[in-house]
Amino acid sequence: MKTEWEITTEDKEPKLNHPVLIEGLPGIGNVGKIAVDFLIEEFKAKKLYTFFSHKFPHSVFVNEDNLVEVPKLELYYKRFGNSNKKDLLLLTGDIQPIDEESCYSFCEEILKITKQYQCTEIITTGGIGLQNIPENPKVYCTGNDEQLFRQYVKKELQVEKQIFGVVGPIVGVSGVLLGLGKKRGVKGVALLAETFGHPMYLGIKGAKELLRVLENKFNYGIDLKKMSKEIVQVENELMKKTKEWLSEHVTSQAAGATAKKQDTSYIG
Amino acid sequence: MKTEWEITTEDKEPKLNHPVLIEGLPGIGNVGKIAVDFLIEEFKAKKLYTFFSHKFPHSVFVNEDNLVEVPKLELYYKRFGNSNKKDLLLLTGDIQPIDEESCYSFCEEILKITKQYQCTEIITTGGIGLQNIPENPKVYCTGNDEQLFRQYVKKELQVEKQIFGVVGPIVGVSGVLLGLGKKRGVKGVALLAETFGHPMYLGIKGAKELLRVLENKFNYGIDLKKMSKEIVQVENELMKKTKEWLSEHVTSQAAGATAKKQDTSYIG
Amino acid sequence: MKTEWEITTEDKEPKLNHPVLIEGLPGIGNVGKIAVDFLIEEFKAKKLYTFFSHKFPHSVFVNEDNLVEVPKLELYYKRFGNSNKKDLLLLTGDIQPIDEESCYSFCEEILKITKQYQCTEIITTGGIGLQNIPENPKVYCTGNDEQLFRQYVKKELQVEKQIFGVVGPIVGVSGVLLGLGKKRGVKGVALLAETFGHPMYLGIKGAKELLRVLENKFNYGIDLKKMSKEIVQVENELMKKTKEWLSEHVTSQAAGATAKKQDTSYIG
Amino acid sequence: MKTEWEITTEDKEPKLNHPVLIEGLPGIGNVGKIAVDFLIEEFKAKKLYTFFSHKFPHSVFVNEDNLVEVPKLELYYKRFGNSNKKDLLLLTGDIQPIDEESCYSFCEEILKITKQYQCTEIITTGGIGLQNIPENPKVYCTGNDEQLFRQYVKKELQVEKQIFGVVGPIVGVSGVLLGLGKKRGVKGVALLAETFGHPMYLGIKGAKELLRVLENKFNYGIDLKKMSKEIVQVENELMKKTKEWLSEHVTSQAAGATAKKQDTSYIG
Repeated sequence: MKTEWEITTEDKEPKLNHPVLIEGLPGIGNVGKIAVDFLIEEFKAKKLYTFFSHKFPHSVFVNEDNLVEVPKLELYYKRFGNSNKKDLLLLTGDIQPIDEESCYSFCEEILKITKQYQCTEIITTGGIGLQNIPENPKVYCTGNDEQLFRQYVKKELQVEKQIFGVVGPIVGVSGVLLGLGKKRGVKGVALLAETFGHPMYLGIKGAKELLRVLENKFNYGIDLKKMSKEIVQVENELMKKTKEWLSEHVTSQAAGATAKKQDTSYIG
Repeated sequence: MKTEWEITTEDKEPKLNHPVLIEGLPGIGNVGKIAVDFLIEEFKAKKLYTFFSHKFPHSVFVNEDNLVEVPKLELYYKRFGNSNKKDLLLLTGDIQPIDEESCYSFCEEILKITKQYQCTEIITTGGIGLQNIPENPKVYCTGNDEQLFRQYVKKELQVEKQIFGVVGPIVGVSGVLLGLGKKRGVKGVALLAETFGHPMYLGIKGAKELLRVLENKFNYGIDLKKMSKEIVQVENELMKKTKEWLSEHVTSQAAGATAKKQDTSYIG
Repeated sequence: MKTEWEITTEDKEPKLNHPVLIEGLPGIGNVGKIAVDFLIEEFKAKKLYTFFSHKFPHSVFVNEDNLVEVPKLELYYKRFGNSNKKDLLLLTGDIQPIDEESCYSFCEEILKITKQYQCTEIITTGGIGLQNIPENPKVYCTGNDEQLFRQYVKKELQVEKQIFGVVGPIVGVSGVLLGLGKKRGVKGVALLAETFGHPMYLGIKGAKELLRVLENKFNYGIDLKKMSKEIVQVENELMKKTKEWLSEHVTSQAAGATAKKQDTSYIG
Repeated sequence: MKTEWEITTEDKEPKLNHPVLIEGLPGIGNVGKIAVDFLIEEFKAKKLYTFFSHKFPHSVFVNEDNLVEVPKLELYYKRFGNSNKKDLLLLTGDIQPIDEESCYSFCEEILKITKQYQCTEIITTGGIGLQNIPENPKVYCTGNDEQLFRQYVKKELQVEKQIFGVVGPIVGVSGVLLGLGKKRGVKGVALLAETFGHPMYLGIKGAKELLRVLENKFNYGIDLKKMSKEIVQVENELMKKTKEWLSEHVTSQAAGATAKKQDTSYIG
């Protein structure tokens, strides 16, 4: 099956200690992306690869420097230089691959990378869309390997064990990385936090719960108090980009730009 | 025309005695799938090949072990070890190939396999969607070869002869295997049982009628009384998977999972 | 640009005398198809090539022999064996290529064939959809070559000269064969007859007008009185096939067959 | 990534003096296309390349000579033969590439050409759709390079500096040429003029403002008074083509032509 991804290496390829790959792309409540962006920021992770495809949305976004930006899909890494701490590969981006086939071919590329760096496991993150804003969002777990799954539903991690019957299908990279991973011999789990299913909702609380679970599991020393208003505003801006990239369809008459409408967003 | 299917061999390739390939993928009333799944269970058929493609739905399903599952398309075989009984190749799955091109390329692969195993014929199965639940569902037949067709509308099989004017086009693998089969020199018939056309209806009665026809034709010793409540419940669960995989479209904001709604299903 | 068409040669490739290719695929009022099917029947033309693609509708039709049929795209030829009469290549079918790309790649194949047989010109035929049934349908002409166009709007042919401003874009094979033909150095005209734009209308009168123009131009001795009720019924059946093949979309739950609804058709 | 564009060389490839490529394809208010078509006419620019793809709309347009035309995408050049004046490459057309992937692959081709001719910069042009007709349309600028951008927002050019927060994503070739250009090492800016967002509106005033900025920047001696009624009528006709090519979808029953409806258009 042909690769349609252009992968640019942004740094010297590092030696990593038993790394874990954590995925956090846009999705319901953006909880996964918020969590992974926080880790990248917090750990000053370095950009390793950028991913590009001709199936990206055919539009650009104007940033605060008045310059254009194309959608990003990026993999960062963090070396702790501590043999007791697993190093990190952190997958983030502005968009999900746009169609089924791109989603699969993207996940094939990510799985090759996890093998190249001998990742011990993949952790995908995402939201479970509820019809109301959850007061205390729970985190659920599923996986593609019985043994790995059990490690993530141990009592001390405070993760819900019983996800069967609770959620419908897991859509997008968070799901396909695990499904395809099983075929390709890469083990992984998904951590899914409850959040409000509204398209403009930013699931900060859900994201914090995801980070709490990761901290309980790996003791990275994540300082959750740092999830300040500033971060919320950055993520709010990122979510708007995501939304805008996906809102436009292509016809000759729609080519060009549209005067911006005022967006409202829910943060919680 | 390029193959886009990844075919995994799950067992040593067996020697089969004049095998018949019976196809039963999801469709109207799921009658074909129910019938073929029953044969696989009843005959303890062995998995031979699994089929995978990047055009599968880009989502995973969580099973009762809380682990993820990808949609399946599988070919099983049954050796009877009896020169009087034709061996079986049984094609089942959770989904139909998702688009026109995938349907054709999948059928090309299946036809290659029928040639490799020197199948005497293909039997595709499916439903004829009625607007009401049929009390005594009839089974109709069509085919891609005059002579083979006549064998299946002999009086003793209790199959309706005159399908022309009764049904519209036969959509999906059940139809294309025959149409493409004619081009590729593979003979086949379709057995189509009346059923209720409602998306949540499980056509158990129609499936039984299909099995009755197969038993009348081949004398495999199929025990229809075994089609118990348990089987119905298993199929009900499978149908929900099929439905869920097909219900989700891909956008960044929909990526992740949705809290499950209560499904109702009609069984009859 | 890759070919995705499977072309089967159905007869020994003939030597043809300055042949003209006339295209008549399904379309508005089916006028082109009715006219070309009539010529094939009338001249007992022989099948030369059949065309097949994985982008065909993924369904089969049950014919009056209770056997399945796949959609056809076929090229026939007629040798008159008379150096004063241009031989004919006649393109007919049950469907138009299903999407933009298939339409272009199909036309590339047809243009290659017109070059191989050194066709002097291509004549595409089709309808101009009006909002009412025209009493005396007019025939309009356009083309991809000034000189050839002038030959078809000579007084004696009774073709309308001024099509500019009368019709919108010409969609499908009838248009693309001319547009692409210009690029590939193949000259052609389109003959378009007024007809009623209703999806179930059979434009017999418009088809007769097309044949009248062809007879005026080439003196083939076409006997228009033969366009009997029988032919109308055959075409009516063909139109239903076309309609059915296009009416079905693919999902697992729709796979199989649907009990036939009663179709009504307008013939005029 | 495979090229799917057929590029025809229409003239001997010229030597150009530090050329600038200006893009003006159809889009909101057609302001970019009107401006670039005016430059081609005014400078009697010569056609250099035409671009064609199987993903073009599968229809043809009938022109005032009653002959068919296919959609055009064309690159013109203008040599001034004056070492003080940058030569021009001018990109125009009847349509935008029809889908995301075509848009990217088309821009790849254009970027290769800008490298081949050692263009100093790309200027894409387009409209910003407002909900009302602007009395005095402003021109905004963005770009893919900080330094180049600054050159275009100097006071004397009378371009708005602050586009961030004013427009949503820039869709189509105008945006992608810059986004992809950054990846491929080609610098560029977009000049976007305010216009009325109505599909039938011709943004003549906005186009004039774009030309004014280009004149302020390059001193080509563009005579804006020449933007006469005639030009407006030509553009009006072109816009109708664009609209018609995009309005038709492909089904067998829609193939052929439709009697033309009366179009109304807004010019301002």
